[in-house]
Amino acid sequence: MDYVYGPGRNHLFVPGPVNIPEQVIRAMNRNNEDYRSPAIPAMTRTLLEDVKKIFKTTSGTPFLIPTTGTGAWESALTNTLSPGDRIVSFLIGQFSLLWIDQQQRLNFNVDVVESDWGQGANLEVLASKLAADSAHTIKAICIVHNETATGVTNNLAAVRKILDHYQHPALFLVDGVSSICALDFRMDEWGIDVALTGSQKALSLPTGMGIVCASPKALEASKTAKSLRVFFDWKDYLKFYKMGTFWPYTPSIQLLYGLRTALDLIFEEGLDNVIARHGRLAKATRQVILFDFSCDFFRSSPYRKYHTLNLKCRIAVEAWGLKNCTQKEEWYSDTVTAVVVPPYIDSSEIVKRGWQRYNLSLGLGLNKVAGKVFRIGHLGNLNELQLLGCLAGVEMVLKDVGYPVKLGSGVGAACAFLQNTTPLIASRI
Amino acid sequence: MDYVYGPGRNHLFVPGPVNIPEQVIRAMNRNNEDYRSPAIPAMTRTLLEDVKKIFKTTSGTPFLIPTTGTGAWESALTNTLSPGDRIVSFLIGQFSLLWIDQQQRLNFNVDVVESDWGQGANLEVLASKLAADSAHTIKAICIVHNETATGVTNNLAAVRKILDHYQHPALFLVDGVSSICALDFRMDEWGIDVALTGSQKALSLPTGMGIVCASPKALEASKTAKSLRVFFDWKDYLKFYKMGTFWPYTPSIQLLYGLRTALDLIFEEGLDNVIARHGRLAKATRQVILFDFSCDFFRSSPYRKYHTLNLKCRIAVEAWGLKNCTQKEEWYSDTVTAVVVPPYIDSSEIVKRGWQRYNLSLGLGLNKVAGKVFRIGHLGNLNELQLLGCLAGVEMVLKDVGYPVKLGSGVGAACAFLQNTTPLIASRI
Amino acid sequence: MDYVYGPGRNHLFVPGPVNIPEQVIRAMNRNNEDYRSPAIPAMTRTLLEDVKKIFKTTSGTPFLIPTTGTGAWESALTNTLSPGDRIVSFLIGQFSLLWIDQQQRLNFNVDVVESDWGQGANLEVLASKLAADSAHTIKAICIVHNETATGVTNNLAAVRKILDHYQHPALFLVDGVSSICALDFRMDEWGIDVALTGSQKALSLPTGMGIVCASPKALEASKTAKSLRVFFDWKDYLKFYKMGTFWPYTPSIQLLYGLRTALDLIFEEGLDNVIARHGRLAKATRQVILFDFSCDFFRSSPYRKYHTLNLKCRIAVEAWGLKNCTQKEEWYSDTVTAVVVPPYIDSSEIVKRGWQRYNLSLGLGLNKVAGKVFRIGHLGNLNELQLLGCLAGVEMVLKDVGYPVKLGSGVGAACAFLQNTTPLIASRI
Amino acid sequence: MDYVYGPGRNHLFVPGPVNIPEQVIRAMNRNNEDYRSPAIPAMTRTLLEDVKKIFKTTSGTPFLIPTTGTGAWESALTNTLSPGDRIVSFLIGQFSLLWIDQQQRLNFNVDVVESDWGQGANLEVLASKLAADSAHTIKAICIVHNETATGVTNNLAAVRKILDHYQHPALFLVDGVSSICALDFRMDEWGIDVALTGSQKALSLPTGMGIVCASPKALEASKTAKSLRVFFDWKDYLKFYKMGTFWPYTPSIQLLYGLRTALDLIFEEGLDNVIARHGRLAKATRQVILFDFSCDFFRSSPYRKYHTLNLKCRIAVEAWGLKNCTQKEEWYSDTVTAVVVPPYIDSSEIVKRGWQRYNLSLGLGLNKVAGKVFRIGHLGNLNELQLLGCLAGVEMVLKDVGYPVKLGSGVGAACAFLQNTTPLIASRI
Repeated sequence: MDYVYGPGRNHLFVPGPVNIPEQVIRAMNRNNEDYRSPAIPAMTRTLLEDVKKIFKTTSGTPFLIPTTGTGAWESALTNTLSPGDRIVSFLIGQFSLLWIDQQQRLNFNVDVVESDWGQGANLEVLASKLAADSAHTIKAICIVHNETATGVTNNLAAVRKILDHYQHPALFLVDGVSSICALDFRMDEWGIDVALTGSQKALSLPTGMGIVCASPKALEASKTAKSLRVFFDWKDYLKFYKMGTFWPYTPSIQLLYGLRTALDLIFEEGLDNVIARHGRLAKATRQVILFDFSCDFFRSSPYRKYHTLNLKCRIAVEAWGLKNCTQKEEWYSDTVTAVVVPPYIDSSEIVKRGWQRYNLSLGLGLNKVAGKVFRIGHLGNLNELQLLGCLAGVEMVLKDVGYPVKLGSGVGAACAFLQNTTPLIASRI
Repeated sequence: MDYVYGPGRNHLFVPGPVNIPEQVIRAMNRNNEDYRSPAIPAMTRTLLEDVKKIFKTTSGTPFLIPTTGTGAWESALTNTLSPGDRIVSFLIGQFSLLWIDQQQRLNFNVDVVESDWGQGANLEVLASKLAADSAHTIKAICIVHNETATGVTNNLAAVRKILDHYQHPALFLVDGVSSICALDFRMDEWGIDVALTGSQKALSLPTGMGIVCASPKALEASKTAKSLRVFFDWKDYLKFYKMGTFWPYTPSIQLLYGLRTALDLIFEEGLDNVIARHGRLAKATRQVILFDFSCDFFRSSPYRKYHTLNLKCRIAVEAWGLKNCTQKEEWYSDTVTAVVVPPYIDSSEIVKRGWQRYNLSLGLGLNKVAGKVFRIGHLGNLNELQLLGCLAGVEMVLKDVGYPVKLGSGVGAACAFLQNTTPLIASRI
Repeated sequence: MDYVYGPGRNHLFVPGPVNIPEQVIRAMNRNNEDYRSPAIPAMTRTLLEDVKKIFKTTSGTPFLIPTTGTGAWESALTNTLSPGDRIVSFLIGQFSLLWIDQQQRLNFNVDVVESDWGQGANLEVLASKLAADSAHTIKAICIVHNETATGVTNNLAAVRKILDHYQHPALFLVDGVSSICALDFRMDEWGIDVALTGSQKALSLPTGMGIVCASPKALEASKTAKSLRVFFDWKDYLKFYKMGTFWPYTPSIQLLYGLRTALDLIFEEGLDNVIARHGRLAKATRQVILFDFSCDFFRSSPYRKYHTLNLKCRIAVEAWGLKNCTQKEEWYSDTVTAVVVPPYIDSSEIVKRGWQRYNLSLGLGLNKVAGKVFRIGHLGNLNELQLLGCLAGVEMVLKDVGYPVKLGSGVGAACAFLQNTTPLIASRI
Repeated sequence: MDYVYGPGRNHLFVPGPVNIPEQVIRAMNRNNEDYRSPAIPAMTRTLLEDVKKIFKTTSGTPFLIPTTGTGAWESALTNTLSPGDRIVSFLIGQFSLLWIDQQQRLNFNVDVVESDWGQGANLEVLASKLAADSAHTIKAICIVHNETATGVTNNLAAVRKILDHYQHPALFLVDGVSSICALDFRMDEWGIDVALTGSQKALSLPTGMGIVCASPKALEASKTAKSLRVFFDWKDYLKFYKMGTFWPYTPSIQLLYGLRTALDLIFEEGLDNVIARHGRLAKATRQVILFDFSCDFFRSSPYRKYHTLNLKCRIAVEAWGLKNCTQKEEWYSDTVTAVVVPPYIDSSEIVKRGWQRYNLSLGLGLNKVAGKVFRIGHLGNLNELQLLGCLAGVEMVLKDVGYPVKLGSGVGAACAFLQNTTPLIASRI
């Protein structure tokens, strides 16, 4: 009777679209409404005000666009730049690659800075390019905060620092699709000019809303940017903002109510707590891949006593003994972990098997890392036991495909971390 | 507890977004899913096949784009045309105006053929332009099938006839936003090259899906069209169609299931029955505005006997005695009726009053007809008694704002028509 | 794809189950929860407190029983009475008949006071029985506040007055199934000992919760009542109330959340406003049946000017000219109207036709009035235009079955009343 | 904004109410309907036919009663027995105790056969009682198939064998509340006269429907049974069955649609597969408590090679080393496991902690085993990874409350079993 029937819940651990909380599903369970009645503008007003909080901006202007992340990219670029403009863009994985492809097809002059997949943006190259650009031919820096394909988080504060160091006026455009609402993100503090996300990521909504936030400088740039645009043109939004009716074309009523509820849930938990929860779940996941006894947590943990002997030799037994696709700790992503499988295993078999046998949805390896990594998305409205169920599933799948994991080892490692660090649920104390 | 609380149901009669049937609300009441699992492509395959039926095309290629009607317009234009291309476009109301604005901002050379608001497209001008264009400088004809602002339906078959008469190769691009699934629409028969609609109109879904269908000729044109585009580029869709994964970026899982159910409902009722129902409800509405005893229906109706005397003099009493914004019967729209109010009444007061007092949502007059007309949308998944409730509400509102309507007159006229013409519900016989 | 598919909404005008507001459907759209967690008792506490308000009692003890109205009856009887107890019970229609049948099968000694169907309870007989009962052999008076089969509302204040007059200690048990939350109901003021309702009536919830409220005197009686009972035993509830866990057996989590929302909606509108709305819609319905120009409303109404001539002779034309099953105005029900059809029409044909042709659900005539009346339920979360849609449908159905109604006449009469009396929606002013 | 907010899903592992599948939540997400329209009887007919399949009966007559399990008990007893009738009833835990309490309060002469909590029904005592009862004074045997408080499953086939052995005509009444749809249950084959369950258990619906199935012999008995009953009287149902309208009083429309979907899901998976899944998840859970290397599974399992050394000594490390409340394997329940905690731990702390910290809902120990056991419900629409998430949570909770569990040990044991035994999801192969 359905396309994906299997007993029990689907365990959705792709890095988007993610699980929607029941409260949001409920809020969206409604008929259409006239978006020109006084009710929708009244609600929209609260959304525009509150959505700024997830960008940590007070001076930014948000746009809630009926589109996806790809459309949000296009909105960011076409409103601020003109064809032929030189932009520096970092290629570190599939999603940055797709953005660069878009930049090139929109006729910008893209200066691609490439890294190995698994590494972060090469900021040294950025520094040298800025240093060499006293003529300010570089109009914008485009960077993906969190590369969803490889689980790499770039250091945005460092980018700002470099821009400031060279007093370079380039616009700072950031894809925050798999970061905003999950990772530490500070639009104003880091001087970001355009930041964007999609509804189906850490906001835990259905797909369909691209959220773009523009700094005053970006708004100013939009007045002279010559890229052709209509659907994505901020000007139309601004015109309707001024009139107080807000919508140049029909929004999804359901997504507006969904966003209202998603924001309410985030503020009830506390945005910083939400970010901390993402950190906790991500660290637990990383424990699982390769149990690391040298990390700070274990030095101070009561769990340590259970591991006083033979630590090194037991490492491969106590956890999965696999490799994180992300090459250095500084780039570890708290929203997605890309796990490298041994060469004799095809990672897409893992994804297929998880779906076919355990109702588990994992992310495939994409492009350069296809077949080589699988991805665990741990973002959005998620908790410890959901993640542990997923990790137990991955263990079984690994065994299914012939990897000699000791069952329970990964989950045990994750539990050890989570049992030490998970706070009580505030509303239940 | 909500932004629009009032006891009882909201009576939604704006010409979009329209009422969503309970079955569709139900189908969309779900968590996200991995769109890369085998389930979503399997469903998508059925959607792409079935959606062609509502366009009445077998040779067209449909695109289900996460956007609105405005985005669907942009998709139609940028995929088939190059900047500077000459297009003939008909301006007959607010929505054709907005499309023309988009065409101009996208740097096409727009040859605007304007009519009075309330009239259809001036096809004589089209004929003369085509006659004069032996060089084929006209690359496309852009026409709104049903102008939602004035309740005017254009004659697409006539456009095709003219094009054929002059053997003109111009592309034939049609906005079917408030027509497809409600009015007679024949993409293949009428040689339409791009047709488009939005999910929140006659399909009775939430907003968020722009559905664009391209003829083989349009697809061919897309290979050489030079308009910059990425998000709206058909090429990316076609690439993923070929791979069988279908989605170049994340679709709304909920809208896919919603579309599946919306199509099922339409096919269960029968597309032609759906269109006939729209015709019936629209005629009933028009009876109400100005009861027309000379029309065919009344000559053959048993209802006639109740009106043997003084027909003419009672006309204003037997119905509202108002004017249809649409100036001739040939243009009457079966999805929206724009009613002209007397000069001493502000039509936006009618809309406001309906909402404030009767939980009734009517369409405002837009732009040139602001304050002069209000609009009754009668499209989508709607039935007789819903419409009659609305009409009763409009009568009361008319009285509220000082128009001397005889209460019951309009509803009686509509009932007279509907009681004669409404078929039994097929599944209940 | 569904058992009742027809285009558009179902127009549900049976006197229960009634339309559920979207807010309540939303609130109930949820997974199960552990009813022993702290969350459910916390919510239950608010429900028990707030539900007393709809009974207008401060001293009563409410029980939210997973059952229907029939079960609520049984709860009221078996907790307060012993087999063989003499009770006076009024038979005025199908639902009082069923309750009496239950009373007899539970071995009470039922003193039935019968009236014609269409009349209220014969209180003179009650007075004479009480006068004769100086030995206080009568243990309880059982009365249906609103007889749903005939649209008759009994005068509960008068019952109390008679009881007080004779200083008779009989318990006063009231079926408020189709009255509470819709009609004026004052448990404390009228000295009612047990009052009960069902969730699917004026509360506008799904079926499944019988709500019974017991006065201190009823609770006292329950300590000695000898009727066997377990599922319906208040004692078990009281035990769990004392423990603060509230539920002797598993409640429906969904109905608890639904009730929470239903109460919130009622309090937001204001209980007295809800009752007034029921009065308004009921009066409008009664206008339709037989337009009564002598009533107060029309003497003072601006509508009057349209009816200065031939009032009497036009009466049958200006409205339906049918009879209300309820024989006197003092018994008119504000939640259901039973309309008597002419002898040459079978009222069940009207119900069948409404359903088959117009997606309209009306109430059948039951038992003695089967075939003779059809019923319009106008209770619960309902507004003016919904009712008017229904009335327009009934007009067409009447015509369908051969009754010479002037189409629009009834709706016009109702509109005339409603347009004069409907307040603005408070939240929209 | 809600009473139980915590990030992520609630992990509901009480033995009822259980998780509702999304498909069922969806099916129930609807407005009320007229239950006297042709649609509801048409659906009811399918429900009554199909519900017999979950009882494995062809000769039984099912009743779908708007009540809970407690009401279903009362229905079973009062329809088949008369006050004073002697019945043999087995007391083995809290739910059998409650049923016996009901039997006594309904004035039956209850011959209680008590066992230790954790043991099954003492069938030897039954045999001796039947042997001694040549006068056939015993009118019924009442037994709980699965005692939810202790996780004990009684052997119904054995009961039938004893009854047959003594050719005793006593009615065989079975509480299948936490067994039907989850455990092997054969009403016809085992000669059960009344079997009953509740909607919120293995059917995975909300609470509110008691499902009672009567054998022809039970129906016959109901004709002469003298227990007073009205709400629970089968006679009224049978009367309406005969009329084809089915419902003596208003059913929950939502639960009917929910049941329809729940049955569809069960038949799609296959009832025997559903039962096998329950067996699999239950065995996995029992592995966790005390990893048992001697059981059949491990003798033949490839997993065995990982445990070639020191099996005995590692037992407490490889799993939790706790005790199952169920004393013998023959009684192990496949729907709920009651875990005995060490004397120095209060099991209600475990439940509280799970809820407060991990959004995990476990079952409390009840009555005699309060504080001594906690319960894991593993019934209904549930899958492997959900259970593993729960088990991981229990591990962490155990550690939280000071029990020296090796984190990962239990989950590992469960994974070892599940990875060997879980079939591919049929619809995904």
